Amino acid sequence: MPITKKILLKEEDIPKQWYNITPDLPHPLPPFIDPKTKEPGVGIVPQIFPKEIINQEISQERWINIPEEVREIYRIWRPSPLFRATGLEKALKTPAKIYYKYEGTSPAGSHKTNSSVPQIYYNMKEGIERVTTETGAGQWGSALAFAASMFGVQATVYMVKSSYEQKPYRKMMMNTFGAEVFASPSKQTAAGRKILEEDPDNSGALGTAISEAVEDALESGKTGKKANYTIGSVFNHVCLHQTVEGLEVKKQLETVDDYPDAIYGCIGGGSSFSGIIWPFYHDRIAKKAPKETKLIAIEPTACPKVTKGEYTYDHGDTAKLTPLVPMHTLGHDFMPAPIHAGGLRYHGIAPTISVLAQEKQINTFAVNQVEAFNAAKIFSQSEGIIPSPESTHAIKAVIDEAHKCKETNETKTLLFILTGHGFFDMSAYGEYFNGNLQPYEYPTEKVAESIEKLQKLYPWLKDAQKKYIQNKP
Amino acid sequence: MPITKKILLKEEDIPKQWYNITPDLPHPLPPFIDPKTKEPGVGIVPQIFPKEIINQEISQERWINIPEEVREIYRIWRPSPLFRATGLEKALKTPAKIYYKYEGTSPAGSHKTNSSVPQIYYNMKEGIERVTTETGAGQWGSALAFAASMFGVQATVYMVKSSYEQKPYRKMMMNTFGAEVFASPSKQTAAGRKILEEDPDNSGALGTAISEAVEDALESGKTGKKANYTIGSVFNHVCLHQTVEGLEVKKQLETVDDYPDAIYGCIGGGSSFSGIIWPFYHDRIAKKAPKETKLIAIEPTACPKVTKGEYTYDHGDTAKLTPLVPMHTLGHDFMPAPIHAGGLRYHGIAPTISVLAQEKQINTFAVNQVEAFNAAKIFSQSEGIIPSPESTHAIKAVIDEAHKCKETNETKTLLFILTGHGFFDMSAYGEYFNGNLQPYEYPTEKVAESIEKLQKLYPWLKDAQKKYIQNKP
Repeated sequence: MPITKKILLKEEDIPKQWYNITPDLPHPLPPFIDPKTKEPGVGIVPQIFPKEIINQEISQERWINIPEEVREIYRIWRPSPLFRATGLEKALKTPAKIYYKYEGTSPAGSHKTNSSVPQIYYNMKEGIERVTTETGAGQWGSALAFAASMFGVQATVYMVKSSYEQKPYRKMMMNTFGAEVFASPSKQTAAGRKILEEDPDNSGALGTAISEAVEDALESGKTGKKANYTIGSVFNHVCLHQTVEGLEVKKQLETVDDYPDAIYGCIGGGSSFSGIIWPFYHDRIAKKAPKETKLIAIEPTACPKVTKGEYTYDHGDTAKLTPLVPMHTLGHDFMPAPIHAGGLRYHGIAPTISVLAQEKQINTFAVNQVEAFNAAKIFSQSEGIIPSPESTHAIKAVIDEAHKCKETNETKTLLFILTGHGFFDMSAYGEYFNGNLQPYEYPTEKVAESIEKLQKLYPWLKDAQKKYIQNKP
Repeated sequence: MPITKKILLKEEDIPKQWYNITPDLPHPLPPFIDPKTKEPGVGIVPQIFPKEIINQEISQERWINIPEEVREIYRIWRPSPLFRATGLEKALKTPAKIYYKYEGTSPAGSHKTNSSVPQIYYNMKEGIERVTTETGAGQWGSALAFAASMFGVQATVYMVKSSYEQKPYRKMMMNTFGAEVFASPSKQTAAGRKILEEDPDNSGALGTAISEAVEDALESGKTGKKANYTIGSVFNHVCLHQTVEGLEVKKQLETVDDYPDAIYGCIGGGSSFSGIIWPFYHDRIAKKAPKETKLIAIEPTACPKVTKGEYTYDHGDTAKLTPLVPMHTLGHDFMPAPIHAGGLRYHGIAPTISVLAQEKQINTFAVNQVEAFNAAKIFSQSEGIIPSPESTHAIKAVIDEAHKCKETNETKTLLFILTGHGFFDMSAYGEYFNGNLQPYEYPTEKVAESIEKLQKLYPWLKDAQKKYIQNKP
């Protein structure tokens, strides 16, 4: 019998509940802090999210029901395939068994639809007719546009200007799903106008686009119908929506009687990585895991928030509209190098990832985009799938481990999350093949500068950090 | 129980044989004619194809075994999903049941890999290390590049210059799979150089690119290792490779106890349409069909070979290198309007389609690209899949029929082939949303002119036509 290439499940097997890691964390998540009161508080959050999303954000329930209406839309592409990387194994001549969960078959081509669909659903249920958001590479924006078209909601997307110009096809995709798209910084918002006044050629950053989308939602009620804001990563509710990935993988691996020795994923805000590892982390906590599984997050050297950043409190956006989030950060004024993994260019990370990293429940390391694309070339030519630039970082790590397995002759089972296809990123491949990619490394000094600035801005921050972050209960 | 959205099969269900329509046609296919001898003959064909492909091209066997090595690669994406268009049905409020076979999950994003994989396989088996081909929209070229990377063969692709410039991402995709790509007309071949001398700004045509790819293969043995030529449509061996589509659909529909009242597909060279209808035509001939099924081919009004063209003998390429093929044609000097369905801009059609059309076994009509994109918008926003511009022509026809079903309250079962996704065609969507698309209609006079020229070139052509085409045995 030949090896099954695509391990598929039936639509009935789409999970009926998302898994929420919060009650299983080694210690409770530090609270958000409202910079105005300097005390725990969520600031503007209640003004821009539907109630059910806020409930999920702070929920201590381990399992959260997935509405039937959401599962109905999930059926378009879920359960997503788990591939056995037979071609890659052969190309590497490795004894390792490599699997990848492929989220690229979704309508928007990435894992982002796992969260955009429930987010739009809960907004629609609470009577919201328009939502705003930001997008970097365009993956979240197009996922939101797709979900909005499914439930008849209007979507307004602020797209980081460099991506808007570099990836016009992503914009047209959002338009095709019926969304309106503005290059950020834009003239639509005060935050955007302020930046453009100071620097008309500003090419944008995710932090800026968040400020614009949040401001649009906050101000919308004054001039028209109230709109809500949506976010594509970092927040708990987003990460938990993504657990359909790992929950499905567990069932899929059961059908071939296998279990991973290590799981790999790239991290931008951390949602796709959370989606695949949380259910396996639950096995660990519940003492159901048949073996010790390493959980490995890979970030770009150009944006090394966990490996080089500071674990402290910081804003999620440039304009400091969001509350202070307990996370590893490069500073909210971080301006990313123009690497092609647009989805990984965010200065912060999901607070849950920070806790897991601090508690050594996960490992993290950084790879540069040139070595990532080297890995992508091997993968494309052996597996036939062209990966998104974000995913290539995980592939690099997996290939390294597979080489080690060859040396030691170990039959390890390696699993990674292939978050999406690279069809909208072919210009990045073009530049790679032309030798134009730089192996950017973010300088440690710049992190120190940003953190110093942050501490000057909020002199009381160190105390808050000590109180909520360093003093583990 | 909710309706199953994606009807899936197991990898074991990938067909073990392709179906060949030739022995089941109402009359034998007219022979190719060698213009030098004016007699039946295949001209250069034996010099540029592997033996097994030629055997398949002329085979009278109804069933042809699919090599295990080919099925192994097919496993990457086959069996492809059959979708129930629940979202579209709801949007149209139609009682019709609509299904579509989706070939966009393949590595190159279209049905073309169904034939590129076996073509590369047979070449590799016969010791060929390099193959050449032409590509219009880039779908065939990237499918060939993918297949070549799977079997370690080198691919050289001549890409119609207008597409090369309009779709740089397709070129980069081919490069990622390891292929070399030239804009056609190119300086690589005598045929290309001749055209460039006369018209340096010539933006290319599929017929020209074919001439270049054929010449490269023909001449290759003189200066280096012999290369072979490959073709992405029109020829019998290509159409029969595509029957995995229809063979899978039949199994998939059995699982939901349904059978189509009508099957729709767009036609460029005719291979994806053949792939889906041939197995149902076999049911008709074998008297196994539970009902009368209409088989409907849709072509663009900008390239109406079957609805406006002449059923006669013509070359497959501009430079008249190929033998004369018995088919509906707009003339081999046809210069297409710049419609975005690049895969439909070919002047001729598969000879089998011509026989089926002449014998009224299939229906054909033409739609323009504006109405096609109108349909694509409805489809994208209700089904979440952005279709390739080619497929939108079939969607337009299906939506029209679904509207009729609503008027007459008929629960017809409609099936269409969704040949691929439109992720590489977002600029076409951009132009559509900007109102820049023209509803081109190819003028009847121009067809008459081209046919007259053809008849002047080969004054004996009318006799051949009478002998082999009009005199049905």
